Amino acid sequence: MATPFRYRRQVQFAETDAAGLTHFSCYFKFMEEAEHALWREAGMSIWAPASGVGFPRVSATCEFLAPLHFEDEFDVLVRIETMARRSIRYACEIVRGETRIATGSMTAVCVSKGADGMRAVEIPAEIVQRLSAMSDQ
Amino acid sequence: MATPFRYRRQVQFAETDAAGLTHFSCYFKFMEEAEHALWREAGMSIWAPASGVGFPRVSATCEFLAPLHFEDEFDVLVRIETMARRSIRYACEIVRGETRIATGSMTAVCVSKGADGMRAVEIPAEIVQRLSAMSDQ
Amino acid sequence: MATPFRYRRQVQFAETDAAGLTHFSCYFKFMEEAEHALWREAGMSIWAPASGVGFPRVSATCEFLAPLHFEDEFDVLVRIETMARRSIRYACEIVRGETRIATGSMTAVCVSKGADGMRAVEIPAEIVQRLSAMSDQ
Amino acid sequence: MATPFRYRRQVQFAETDAAGLTHFSCYFKFMEEAEHALWREAGMSIWAPASGVGFPRVSATCEFLAPLHFEDEFDVLVRIETMARRSIRYACEIVRGETRIATGSMTAVCVSKGADGMRAVEIPAEIVQRLSAMSDQ
Repeated sequence: MATPFRYRRQVQFAETDAAGLTHFSCYFKFMEEAEHALWREAGMSIWAPASGVGFPRVSATCEFLAPLHFEDEFDVLVRIETMARRSIRYACEIVRGETRIATGSMTAVCVSKGADGMRAVEIPAEIVQRLSAMSDQ
Repeated sequence: MATPFRYRRQVQFAETDAAGLTHFSCYFKFMEEAEHALWREAGMSIWAPASGVGFPRVSATCEFLAPLHFEDEFDVLVRIETMARRSIRYACEIVRGETRIATGSMTAVCVSKGADGMRAVEIPAEIVQRLSAMSDQ
Repeated sequence: MATPFRYRRQVQFAETDAAGLTHFSCYFKFMEEAEHALWREAGMSIWAPASGVGFPRVSATCEFLAPLHFEDEFDVLVRIETMARRSIRYACEIVRGETRIATGSMTAVCVSKGADGMRAVEIPAEIVQRLSAMSDQ
Repeated sequence: MATPFRYRRQVQFAETDAAGLTHFSCYFKFMEEAEHALWREAGMSIWAPASGVGFPRVSATCEFLAPLHFEDEFDVLVRIETMARRSIRYACEIVRGETRIATGSMTAVCVSKGADGMRAVEIPAEIVQRLSAMSDQ
């Protein structure tokens, strides 16, 4: 994925904490929002009722480099780092203008949504195709 | 319900905001947590997979009388104000020691969880019985 | 305020709950986000570090009319219903296309941010002016 | 820290998502709540108004091994992995009974809360002492 997908966002008051900063757990929400926006850009919903699969996280990391304050505008740059048969690893960077705010990663695994609970399955071909098309841009 | 059900809680850091106070949206989570603890006390889960019904809110109100800060311990006093055929109205009071923090209310309606979407239905007899037993204490 | 201020938003996955709907506490965040966007439109930040005042909520209500699902796009229509000497009451309506999703209200009181704790004070003249200018549009 | 500190918690409805699972961002809140409970056990508040220091996160990671559902009771086991001059690294494990739910880590850095912004400083001696006393138990 030559060029990462860019998701624009602004810090909301409910996302700040008593230290006056954006609570660190919100960065993970920001990365997930960017992932879902990337899927929409690829013409899909990551959580489609009709779809038989879901993509729960198996791993998430974040390094916090600089704080975000109320009403700060920032971008989440997300790109697919690796797409395996059953999982996708995203690399993320959060920036506010020229300032690097955070770097992070998420790995999501493809699971069937059957009544028998979740079970890791291969990523459906159409999803691979559409996400790959995004990555080649 | 002569004596309201008491749910003890402590303010977490993620629930504070840049003003140094507990964000007002959290009070609604506190009231819902107390409602669910009341159901557990009555021997039930409000969101049981096997159950055919759910209880989404149709109304919620809160008056904020005094602030809550990080690590403040408080109680949510919840009681069933009225139980109609298809809905339940809860009255809540949040107190920290002798200090009244907030008063609020929630009205939840009983809906079937069918594939055809939500539809208001009568509250199942067993639920009425168990909640009434709580109310008579 | 002849025409309410319109704030566009999309439901994020973290805002849904196990019932598949947007959690009711999020509606209060949506209304607050719209309020803050209204202030920005009026050329102000509701939480400016240099400002001596803040606007905590003293009351909030919401009637939930129809559900919101993941990725639903909706608008929060917010207008200043009354501006008293020390408080502002907002009336809100949440709509998804032609469908009314919710109606609600918030009352915020102007407080000084002094070291002696919060104390209700008159809304500074410039704030009254700028918000009134919005209301006259 | 021979024996990790144990923090008991229950999944709240607002913490679930449309997949019926606890949203992954909540795991980071759970780990932070356990950290703060550990500090209280050591006789301190991690965010004391009178204290001149704070402990923002510079890194957080989590591996998600098994899902948590609504009302699941679980424990967060937290221990101080390393205490450097200016930072503390916590190792966490989330378990539900015998089932490992997640493992994670957080690194917090000690900063002065001066008006000139945050600046990394040495952890005050009393904090080192009290946390070390916990670790020796």
